[in-house]
Amino acid sequence: MINFEQILSNVRGNVPLVHNITNYVTVNDCANILLACGGSPIMSDDAEDVEDITSICGGLNINIGTLNKNTIPSMFLAGRRANELGHPVLLDPVGAGASKLRTETAVNLIRDVRFSVIRGNISEIKALAQGTSSTNGVDANEADQVNAANIDSVISFAKSFSEQTGAIIAITGPTDIIVDKSRTCLIRNGHPMMSKITGTGCMLSAMTTAFVTANPEDPFEAVCAAVIAMGLCGEIAHARLGELDGNSSYRNYIIDAVYNLTAGQMEEGAKFEIL
Amino acid sequence: MINFEQILSNVRGNVPLVHNITNYVTVNDCANILLACGGSPIMSDDAEDVEDITSICGGLNINIGTLNKNTIPSMFLAGRRANELGHPVLLDPVGAGASKLRTETAVNLIRDVRFSVIRGNISEIKALAQGTSSTNGVDANEADQVNAANIDSVISFAKSFSEQTGAIIAITGPTDIIVDKSRTCLIRNGHPMMSKITGTGCMLSAMTTAFVTANPEDPFEAVCAAVIAMGLCGEIAHARLGELDGNSSYRNYIIDAVYNLTAGQMEEGAKFEIL
Amino acid sequence: MINFEQILSNVRGNVPLVHNITNYVTVNDCANILLACGGSPIMSDDAEDVEDITSICGGLNINIGTLNKNTIPSMFLAGRRANELGHPVLLDPVGAGASKLRTETAVNLIRDVRFSVIRGNISEIKALAQGTSSTNGVDANEADQVNAANIDSVISFAKSFSEQTGAIIAITGPTDIIVDKSRTCLIRNGHPMMSKITGTGCMLSAMTTAFVTANPEDPFEAVCAAVIAMGLCGEIAHARLGELDGNSSYRNYIIDAVYNLTAGQMEEGAKFEIL
Repeated sequence: MINFEQILSNVRGNVPLVHNITNYVTVNDCANILLACGGSPIMSDDAEDVEDITSICGGLNINIGTLNKNTIPSMFLAGRRANELGHPVLLDPVGAGASKLRTETAVNLIRDVRFSVIRGNISEIKALAQGTSSTNGVDANEADQVNAANIDSVISFAKSFSEQTGAIIAITGPTDIIVDKSRTCLIRNGHPMMSKITGTGCMLSAMTTAFVTANPEDPFEAVCAAVIAMGLCGEIAHARLGELDGNSSYRNYIIDAVYNLTAGQMEEGAKFEIL
Repeated sequence: MINFEQILSNVRGNVPLVHNITNYVTVNDCANILLACGGSPIMSDDAEDVEDITSICGGLNINIGTLNKNTIPSMFLAGRRANELGHPVLLDPVGAGASKLRTETAVNLIRDVRFSVIRGNISEIKALAQGTSSTNGVDANEADQVNAANIDSVISFAKSFSEQTGAIIAITGPTDIIVDKSRTCLIRNGHPMMSKITGTGCMLSAMTTAFVTANPEDPFEAVCAAVIAMGLCGEIAHARLGELDGNSSYRNYIIDAVYNLTAGQMEEGAKFEIL
Repeated sequence: MINFEQILSNVRGNVPLVHNITNYVTVNDCANILLACGGSPIMSDDAEDVEDITSICGGLNINIGTLNKNTIPSMFLAGRRANELGHPVLLDPVGAGASKLRTETAVNLIRDVRFSVIRGNISEIKALAQGTSSTNGVDANEADQVNAANIDSVISFAKSFSEQTGAIIAITGPTDIIVDKSRTCLIRNGHPMMSKITGTGCMLSAMTTAFVTANPEDPFEAVCAAVIAMGLCGEIAHARLGELDGNSSYRNYIIDAVYNLTAGQMEEGAKFEIL
């Protein structure tokens, strides 16, 4: 249903140059996973620099993880320029709901910038849609967790948020929910230990930007493929863990798995349904 | 004497959310070691963001490693808010003594903010206590090294600094010295190769904040347990090194060892005496 | 011809303290590779801090990878102070040519600060010499690639840029070209997979600063030795890769290889000619 072969070979053949305005916690991992998947990273967050840099790139990844008074204006400048140029733009609203500054910045960004993709955990996406909320730091609240009982209402909520913003909405967690106006994809790849590494969400956002940039003909499938790839690599890397390995080696093995990922592995290992 | 079982299980059971205002050199390792030990990290350093973030956290870790004119006011704002909320606050005065800005910032911080723990090498702690000094960059000066001849005077100095500040003082080095007003703990875990990795001190400060946050009934023992855990994991990781491994793999193995650390390993491997 | 034994033992014996004003993407790797080669890193980029820090160091590494309005003035302040003190200063003009801010900052830096070494890819060095250009992000443009047909003209260009700036020019790529006014060294160590890791250039710049700082009697040979060491470690690390390893493990193995590097390995593995 999803042409993994084509999507992967577009990323590796086109080598999408991705401009990242991202947090300094996980930035190195974001750069390395972009290289691992076949893209090319560039980081720039000064207001005087971002428009030039976005102009030479193919896509833009905005992550508010360590936003500050200097980088917030840069997010708007880069986002608007990317819109003018027709480049895909992804928003990762890290910690939306955890502070007024984060929630307001994310809300203002979706007002001013047309995003192709918004990716976050369920608490962040709710905070963003409602303009207020409380999250458990950068992780999803337990009260917000998606389960069999509430998944239909989460999908409805995501669809309506997608209609409102025009963006593909990717709510990631144990079950990932990807929606656009007409389609829904549920993905069940991944491993619980991924939550024991900082930056799996940030890395996924960076990689998703590369996938969408290299696959303009069907961004929805590109997002699904990126989310599947990340989850599957979490599984592959977990199978590789030795007795003495912990979360630091796991992080390396996940990026390694992305580097070595084949369409065959994706065809065999993908656990998804398109509704 | 120290109930490692209880301390570790409190960290893993409570999953303390730790707010870090820390340097961008070692921030990723700090986040991963916090996850490894059972805590949860959040990084935020903008003046408009830090009070909200500290409010949803359980503890605060202030590390001045790459302080700047924007993050310094944030350290004071977050520290005061954490004090109001009764949250433990740790200070890691990286490079105090190496520059006027670092020494003055650290000195002003301990005047304005009530710290639960101050952790640094002997040169940094001396610079902080005296308000002036010269250090060898971010490492301890040779002239300051603790040895059999001067250890009693170092302990006296640390005790008086603890009385002055109300903080537990953790002077780490080949022999770690942990003091509060009434107790002294000497720790001899660790491996010299730990000094060949950037950020072992920063990582220890982050982990110590998690231990203290999750163990409010005896912060002194929690600090001792965190320092022992770090040193012991340095030993465990060193035993794992293969012929081709160097400091980069060693860093990963140390975080892995924290991830896999058991109370049994601590009971067997801890090398400490409480005076 | 190059005394690797002496150069390496000077680095390991002198433990050069290197001040880095560098980007936050690869800063942790720069710190760890400095420790791996035998140096000692300190990072500081606030205008009020950099002159003090540079004064206690032996060398200065300026990397404009994530420059911003706060760190740009710091680069000038630190550079001028290092010049006053006679410390070697290296410039890594990351992304020069990719934006007006980067090109102008790099051009102004070489006007105001006397650099001992300027290291970049061919597109960055051209942008810097010409004051304008367009690069493919942070990687070299294909049109700029050095090959058998144009290498003589690239060497002439580099020599004239070296005469103009007084700096040793290191143009790194598949063939590395190191020139000063009178000498040229061509180096063919390295592995194409090094371009799949973020920060190999930044790491090389940091390590080169340590080599030059510890070897003031012949900085040209020190630069050549550092470039050879990096390329050779890229080869050694590549030989170590297992079937499941990718670019993340490769990064660790390269730093590990630097940690374990011997003069014997360099004498045996160096592929260079001095013209």
